[in-house]
Amino acid sequence: MDSTKKILVVSAHPEPRSLNGALTSFAVEELRAAGHEVRVSDLYAMGWKAAVDADDFPGHAGDGPLDVLAAHERATLAGGLTPDVLAEQEKVRWSDAVILQFPMWWFSMPAILKGWVDRVFTNGFAHGPAVAPPYTGGALGGRRALVSVTIGARESAFSDRGAHGRLADLLFPVQHGLFWFTGMAPLEPFAVYGAVGLPAERFAAAKREYRRRLRGLFTDEPVPFRSLLDDYDRDMRLRPGAEEPGTAGLDVHLRSRRITRTGDVAPHRADDPSLVG
Amino acid sequence: MDSTKKILVVSAHPEPRSLNGALTSFAVEELRAAGHEVRVSDLYAMGWKAAVDADDFPGHAGDGPLDVLAAHERATLAGGLTPDVLAEQEKVRWSDAVILQFPMWWFSMPAILKGWVDRVFTNGFAHGPAVAPPYTGGALGGRRALVSVTIGARESAFSDRGAHGRLADLLFPVQHGLFWFTGMAPLEPFAVYGAVGLPAERFAAAKREYRRRLRGLFTDEPVPFRSLLDDYDRDMRLRPGAEEPGTAGLDVHLRSRRITRTGDVAPHRADDPSLVG
Repeated sequence: MDSTKKILVVSAHPEPRSLNGALTSFAVEELRAAGHEVRVSDLYAMGWKAAVDADDFPGHAGDGPLDVLAAHERATLAGGLTPDVLAEQEKVRWSDAVILQFPMWWFSMPAILKGWVDRVFTNGFAHGPAVAPPYTGGALGGRRALVSVTIGARESAFSDRGAHGRLADLLFPVQHGLFWFTGMAPLEPFAVYGAVGLPAERFAAAKREYRRRLRGLFTDEPVPFRSLLDDYDRDMRLRPGAEEPGTAGLDVHLRSRRITRTGDVAPHRADDPSLVG
Repeated sequence: MDSTKKILVVSAHPEPRSLNGALTSFAVEELRAAGHEVRVSDLYAMGWKAAVDADDFPGHAGDGPLDVLAAHERATLAGGLTPDVLAEQEKVRWSDAVILQFPMWWFSMPAILKGWVDRVFTNGFAHGPAVAPPYTGGALGGRRALVSVTIGARESAFSDRGAHGRLADLLFPVQHGLFWFTGMAPLEPFAVYGAVGLPAERFAAAKREYRRRLRGLFTDEPVPFRSLLDDYDRDMRLRPGAEEPGTAGLDVHLRSRRITRTGDVAPHRADDPSLVG
């Protein structure tokens, strides 16, 4: 069918019988039932190596210092990356959308998933002189990206005034710094709060909400980050006056946003009548 | 001597002959020359295991699902953590200050260092019911914490209006979410920008600046994050009107700050006359 898409789900939890494991399985089932092709990178099951090190560069002469940025570019362009990294790059290239499923540990992704990012998104593949400039929709452009995160603490602590910081700000390094940097279009994150010992009825509600988000994977409006080419000067600073009135902090990097009463960003929907009328 | 302090330097770069390696050595020499005791955790040299997994819990019955939060607490309180984790916890407990030395990769720390955080700062040691509440100066209180980070891109791109996001916001998960959460007092980060192929004169300037920061490790004023007990309601939201006038974004979690013309936070110095007069 024409609407068939390819989705890569990257999952990072050591316990398959966890909430993260359940959400990964749920996403795979839902997406396949909708006619999509799905591949899963279950990082723990794969025994994914987290740390970038000299073993990542079999072609590197051992007598010179290892310059990771340069070695990544050289290995990427010369086909000298290790098979595990090449396999993941092939999956990302194959995909129309990437979903990262992880528990929030210390306000960011678990080390094993950070190691997937560090090792797979190489200079020459996801950024650098050999590909399109950052923040322009190039490099890995045409792909959608969704964070699905479980969080032990309560939602209020991640609101605008929450002690842990606003979720959008905590995830800015992923949403803007990884996805949008490489040209992917990030959607609003899907988060399950209070995820420790989640009661059955809240798990059911989380699945209903996740189903809604998965159905909107290719139709919901992405987070409207700005293009580097349009809105920034040569020093990569936002041009004076370019920000939307009333925005501050990291929100200055949004083209526009609708703000709900609690200050959270409302997910934009392509079928939302307010966007067409 | 009375002013002797204990400092743990945690270093995360695969190449000892890198800028990170040089800054680690420089810090060790400077701090020892000043009469302090220094220990180094060179994570790559140690072969640090990054991923939290079932091997971290030798006492865990393999037939039940692994609940990381609960397993961490049980193992921590029962003395059942692995020797590598116990050794790092002992170093943190021993220390009066912790320095994290790392290259910024994808706008956060390398996976191996995230894995040090994930595995060492366990429930029962750094947070959780068995220790003091977060954001109160308890748990690991009495310790100072400094991020020393090398960044390939230019400084302007990390300013208030910089395309990559403001450095303080990108490091909020570390500064506030790790250090201040566990009671440590974070200093303003020390950053070397344009760190790719750093010319000798800029390396010399970086060392001068780092020396100044190391000398202020126990006297510079920490980032003035708020106490959870003073400024937040029971839902962990900042109380209405508590923020400093004119602050927005993640800065609402600062008690006060002095803003320079570029919008960067000026490091507070205990010997700064404006603070006493």
